Amino acid sequence: MNEYHMTPGQFREEGKKLIDWIADYYEQVEQYPVLSQVKPGEIKKQLPEMPPLSGEPFDKMLADVDRIIMPGITHWQSPNFFAYFPANTSFPAILGDLLSSGLGVQGMLWATSPAATELETRVMDWLAEMLELPQAFRSTSTGGGVIQDTASSSALAAVLAAREKVTRFSGNEKGVQQKLVAYVSAQTHSSVEKAVKIAGIGRENLRMIDVDEKFALRPNLLREQIRQDRESGFLPFFVCATIGTTSSNAVDPIRKIGEICRDENLWLHIDGAMSGTALLCPEFRFHADGLELADSFCFNPHKWMFTNFDCDCFWVADRQHLINTFSILPEYLRNQATESGEVFDYRDWHIQLGRRFRSLKLWFVIRHYGVEGLQFHIRKHVQLARWFAEQVSLSPHFELVTSPPFNLVCFRHNGTDEFNLQLMNEINLSGKIFFSHTKLAGRVVLRMSIAQTHTTKKQVERAWQLITETAERLRNN
Amino acid sequence: MNEYHMTPGQFREEGKKLIDWIADYYEQVEQYPVLSQVKPGEIKKQLPEMPPLSGEPFDKMLADVDRIIMPGITHWQSPNFFAYFPANTSFPAILGDLLSSGLGVQGMLWATSPAATELETRVMDWLAEMLELPQAFRSTSTGGGVIQDTASSSALAAVLAAREKVTRFSGNEKGVQQKLVAYVSAQTHSSVEKAVKIAGIGRENLRMIDVDEKFALRPNLLREQIRQDRESGFLPFFVCATIGTTSSNAVDPIRKIGEICRDENLWLHIDGAMSGTALLCPEFRFHADGLELADSFCFNPHKWMFTNFDCDCFWVADRQHLINTFSILPEYLRNQATESGEVFDYRDWHIQLGRRFRSLKLWFVIRHYGVEGLQFHIRKHVQLARWFAEQVSLSPHFELVTSPPFNLVCFRHNGTDEFNLQLMNEINLSGKIFFSHTKLAGRVVLRMSIAQTHTTKKQVERAWQLITETAERLRNN
Repeated sequence: MNEYHMTPGQFREEGKKLIDWIADYYEQVEQYPVLSQVKPGEIKKQLPEMPPLSGEPFDKMLADVDRIIMPGITHWQSPNFFAYFPANTSFPAILGDLLSSGLGVQGMLWATSPAATELETRVMDWLAEMLELPQAFRSTSTGGGVIQDTASSSALAAVLAAREKVTRFSGNEKGVQQKLVAYVSAQTHSSVEKAVKIAGIGRENLRMIDVDEKFALRPNLLREQIRQDRESGFLPFFVCATIGTTSSNAVDPIRKIGEICRDENLWLHIDGAMSGTALLCPEFRFHADGLELADSFCFNPHKWMFTNFDCDCFWVADRQHLINTFSILPEYLRNQATESGEVFDYRDWHIQLGRRFRSLKLWFVIRHYGVEGLQFHIRKHVQLARWFAEQVSLSPHFELVTSPPFNLVCFRHNGTDEFNLQLMNEINLSGKIFFSHTKLAGRVVLRMSIAQTHTTKKQVERAWQLITETAERLRNN
Repeated sequence: MNEYHMTPGQFREEGKKLIDWIADYYEQVEQYPVLSQVKPGEIKKQLPEMPPLSGEPFDKMLADVDRIIMPGITHWQSPNFFAYFPANTSFPAILGDLLSSGLGVQGMLWATSPAATELETRVMDWLAEMLELPQAFRSTSTGGGVIQDTASSSALAAVLAAREKVTRFSGNEKGVQQKLVAYVSAQTHSSVEKAVKIAGIGRENLRMIDVDEKFALRPNLLREQIRQDRESGFLPFFVCATIGTTSSNAVDPIRKIGEICRDENLWLHIDGAMSGTALLCPEFRFHADGLELADSFCFNPHKWMFTNFDCDCFWVADRQHLINTFSILPEYLRNQATESGEVFDYRDWHIQLGRRFRSLKLWFVIRHYGVEGLQFHIRKHVQLARWFAEQVSLSPHFELVTSPPFNLVCFRHNGTDEFNLQLMNEINLSGKIFFSHTKLAGRVVLRMSIAQTHTTKKQVERAWQLITETAERLRNN
């Protein structure tokens, strides 16, 4: 019967070992160098060139994880990880994902597992409530939410739905031959550039509007550029504004941009991938003022809301454009529920046809922490970032580049770019912490992203100490 | 310290409970009705309208899974699931995915976890060896493999890379203003239609070439259509051929199509999403004859290779076109390894920027089963399909619509479409098995997809008995 299969009994045994392995990992994660120290090719050469002909025991595989894989891990789950942006996890999320893997449901249609669709709809409505999103974004209104894999896919979906709205592309493909133009700020995430390339609109038809001293889009320049483009025979159709840019956490003025988009009939997408989670707390919602003027919005629980990758939440104010973009119905997927129009079939809301039971881990996270638990941790991270920013301000050797609206601190050591990069590289190579850099206004800027699930005051204090001590040593060299 | 977080101790306890829950599920899965019996809205109304303010214990969540979620599950992991296509899992795959969730690595760049990139490269090379893919598809040659989420994303990546190759789109966006035309058969998966819509090429520039009596693309018609399109000023650029179409498992003549594509300088993508796994066995490789003429190929371990969703394997013969399509490098992701050119950064191989540690579950599956274990199960499923097809052939009431090349049997009851649909719906509503239908040559055809991990002769015999007995009862009504 069970030739070659792992039996349920073996699964119980190995699965429990693996649960312990993961618990041990989180208990010991600070013992690893945060940034992997291996050289290119070092992992691969330890892996056999040929696949195994016969099966191997699970213990051997787990031993190889320890021996071969772990030295090649950069520890995103270390409380000393301050690089890029968070990709934080939590135990309830890991369990929710495990349940999803175990059930092995393929939820492309309502009919292929009604619970997968209906729980997702409910959880997305919960989140709309939790972030105080506009009414139109609820499933009970004209819009609704869907879980995408990443904000890159949401950006693409938004670009495509916008194209659909303006050109009725699916009914009239010739529409796209008009010269569509999209707008972002010079600080917008690169995923929008990728999206306009994918959509065939082309990078040269993406206008990067200049930013102000806080690295936020200048609405007046946007309005002027739209006017010029119309005069030149282009068809402006899409704007992406950001709540918390990746590079510096800048917040674009949503209301002013939204008013321009309404006047000009442009689709407004709001990218809150990194910082949208802050809207859980009422005191941060002023950053989203004007959100009711947006056509779509996304944020990533897999960044800052303790829900492991992948989990991007995407809402539209009018779901019809999205569905017109993605809907395709071959005979072998026809079914009564779909034809009744009473249900959502989420495969019509994104690129992929297939989808796993995506909402389980999000449901587990929200129920485990409750709204107040999530708020507690967001506030804690923001406080830690403010504490760090204060230290920078007080130091004679460092300057704060922007005042942090959320959990990202952008700062630099006085002096050259080279010194800053040397400082960062030296610290990262120590393995004690891992942080990263960007360029703002032409200068190298150091970034501390303070949002790992288990980061506390202790790690942030130590990081500041390490940075100042290393800087002093380098200055004296 | 741990306000609101689940502690490692609690995770050990709850995680082990969940491992047992999953093992119990697989032991008891045949007790559930395969197709969920709920009505639209029935699950959602049992879920609170408002999110919880305070956290809840894990036991309560798991109890709600049993009480609210399980009735809304269609059991893709039941050995009595014969609908659509498989989305099979296995215990080693579930454990691999659990490890990926636990490590919480974000592998967008080589530098953000070298092991995630290097294990993926190695495992994709293993699979190229296991399926005997052409040399060019190996990472050691001009091409290489990457794990995509689904075959829909692979189809899109192939269309985009083809556009890049023909028009140098990224360097010269005006190129796309030429009238690109893509070609599929009338039986090709709908994902290619979705891809040309997304890419802005438009549905009206997708030619659906007619098929022969085995539902395979007719190469002569393809050649003729390309000629006509060139005469009309179009720019033919892309063909998708299939090894095992979704509807009927038809196999397009790869070599003949490939020769046309070489003559005409068109990109050839081979979609083996559903049946590519069969290439593990040498005796099925004649179906892929001519694969060395293809530019890209994909198959889904998350369908028939015991690797839970999502896991689509995608190879290209020349990786440069793919990378030119997707590559974007903002300052905050710059690093030495990327700039050295010595490493792959897989975020340049697909739509998404972020990616989890995708290869772990595939590595676990290949090592657990070994090549011979995987071959054993593929052969078993094909034998079961042949046995079922034989019963159909011997029955005076049923006819075989196609001779099954792999694991999908297309058949129908003599008589009307309505009778066939009634037969299928009645059986599916019984909950004993779940199978589905398609339309071929204008007629309703029933489909038995025999590929669930744990399906054995017992379930297939019972299914045939149930179908014949129900048909007899309906005939006598």
